[in-house]
Amino acid sequence: MNFKTIEWKNNQVVLLDQRRLPTEEVYVSCNNYRAVIEAIKNMTVRGAPAIGVTAAMGAALAALAIRAETRDDFFKQFLANCQEIRQARPTAVNLAWAIDRILGFAQENNHLLLSELKVAIMSEAIKMAEEDVKANQAMGHHGEALIANGDHVLTHCNAGALATAGFGTALGVLYAAKERGKKFTVFADETRPFLQGSRLTAWELQKNNIPVTLITDNMAGWMMKKGEISKIIVGADRIAANGDVANKIGTYTVAVLAKEHKIPFYVAAPTSTIDMKMRSGEEIPIEERDEEEVTHVNQKRVAPLQIKVRNPAFDVTPHSLVTAIITERGIIEKPYRENIKKIFTS
Amino acid sequence: MNFKTIEWKNNQVVLLDQRRLPTEEVYVSCNNYRAVIEAIKNMTVRGAPAIGVTAAMGAALAALAIRAETRDDFFKQFLANCQEIRQARPTAVNLAWAIDRILGFAQENNHLLLSELKVAIMSEAIKMAEEDVKANQAMGHHGEALIANGDHVLTHCNAGALATAGFGTALGVLYAAKERGKKFTVFADETRPFLQGSRLTAWELQKNNIPVTLITDNMAGWMMKKGEISKIIVGADRIAANGDVANKIGTYTVAVLAKEHKIPFYVAAPTSTIDMKMRSGEEIPIEERDEEEVTHVNQKRVAPLQIKVRNPAFDVTPHSLVTAIITERGIIEKPYRENIKKIFTS
Repeated sequence: MNFKTIEWKNNQVVLLDQRRLPTEEVYVSCNNYRAVIEAIKNMTVRGAPAIGVTAAMGAALAALAIRAETRDDFFKQFLANCQEIRQARPTAVNLAWAIDRILGFAQENNHLLLSELKVAIMSEAIKMAEEDVKANQAMGHHGEALIANGDHVLTHCNAGALATAGFGTALGVLYAAKERGKKFTVFADETRPFLQGSRLTAWELQKNNIPVTLITDNMAGWMMKKGEISKIIVGADRIAANGDVANKIGTYTVAVLAKEHKIPFYVAAPTSTIDMKMRSGEEIPIEERDEEEVTHVNQKRVAPLQIKVRNPAFDVTPHSLVTAIITERGIIEKPYRENIKKIFTS
Repeated sequence: MNFKTIEWKNNQVVLLDQRRLPTEEVYVSCNNYRAVIEAIKNMTVRGAPAIGVTAAMGAALAALAIRAETRDDFFKQFLANCQEIRQARPTAVNLAWAIDRILGFAQENNHLLLSELKVAIMSEAIKMAEEDVKANQAMGHHGEALIANGDHVLTHCNAGALATAGFGTALGVLYAAKERGKKFTVFADETRPFLQGSRLTAWELQKNNIPVTLITDNMAGWMMKKGEISKIIVGADRIAANGDVANKIGTYTVAVLAKEHKIPFYVAAPTSTIDMKMRSGEEIPIEERDEEEVTHVNQKRVAPLQIKVRNPAFDVTPHSLVTAIITERGIIEKPYRENIKKIFTS
């Protein structure tokens, strides 16, 4: 990759400001956990795996900053800080997963001196970023088998290097296919309201020399009808135990269109995205975001004053519409409830 | 209506500049046919019936301006001017229909003095605007029977008073239902790339006191899945003899979603939109517009430099996905080829 999505540097969390892409490549530094929460909320950083890694680094910043007399005191403050980070966004499970892992790690290591424990937490957060990249590469390795020469692959939102600590989930599969010498082209949905497709996916694919064509979300159906799309691959923010997939709003529509046109619909996500506590997608909380994302583009109003707006940031695609789920541990096919369980126990 | 989409005033064509809605209500005057062509091309005025009426008025401006010695000379120039207007946009058949009607009218009246003929052409163009409003009202009268109390109606693009000489096609049906005292709400798709839904439909429904909620195009599927949409009604730019419907890009996607969720999908359009010369939708030319509509919003770039873009302005919905076509002569149901033929011969 020719950029760094997230980096731990001089005891700061350095984030590529994704709100300013594609016209400016600007990095922002967070030197405390509250700044990290704000960066997650305002989408300086976004994408489920990237949010998870950023949250872990935020927890590390919190740990380093705690001035506690006793171990109990430290854990009380650390737990409170971590709970605050966990609330930053509700849909992506990787956020809660990352916080749980950091908390669990801290508890397992509570025999260490507090000063040692803080450093260990920091190292763990950095390790999680490295593991995320490795998981993406493994996912790419498994998934690239599904991409053929001559494919025209549609993707929605951004599940790329920008959505992870590097490499990407859905786009990681494409990067892996490219590394294997396969020739294919990509269609990127612009992904309103936040335009992750036009601003981020188009940018990173172009930056990595993969031919990409930008379309608006409502063109995807027509492109499928005209036979211009042969495969679909998207990421996920949370996957339920039955294989239902919560992902960026519009994913469900793409999945229905895929069914109508008999086009394979793949989801690429690390196993940390699978939430075994959710029996089905109906239990997954869906974040509704600020209406200004819909009424304004580039701070300029495009809708009438006082118009009523809906802005669900995610939707749920039923597992019946998912051809396969690509993970770092291999490709999961139907029946999902059974095969997801298997992948966690094998 | 609390605004005038198109008006003939002091030998000028006065158009509500739809590019500046919803934040500014500005009217522009065209005093020659070339200005009218430019207004059609740059979407100062848009919507198939509105384009037809504007084109007819543009032809009238052309006729009034011709300085010809002989009748032959007049007709030669008038024909050339009309052909130029006809080329302004390729997909909406009403444009060609309106030009053909004005030309036919001129030929039928070629016994008049040239000075009288020019005035007669002007009167005919004004009459076409009045007929368009009457056709919309008749369409509303037929179509409102399909709207029930408690409906949540999705519409795409703008097929309202702003898309016609007044009242509207799809939205005309809703205005008629409101006049009958029915209570319902509307979802407006924002309709990228030109945002006719957020800029125009939301604006005119709000202005006419119909409760409207704005969503992005990619939310429609999820709203249907959640049971929040009970009916769909859209306009048309051209309808083939078999009932295939060319309309704003994204209409086809909405129709596929309607099928998946078993929601009625209605098309409202005057019979002038039906092009009996097109056996099926595959023959309808689809305009590809400038890529800046996709890469820029409000003149600000939202996509990387040099990105490849597709921008088909329309798509074709196969008649199999259309529940009924509402026209000023009544509601057409399947089988369309047979019943469309009937409506023209009855």
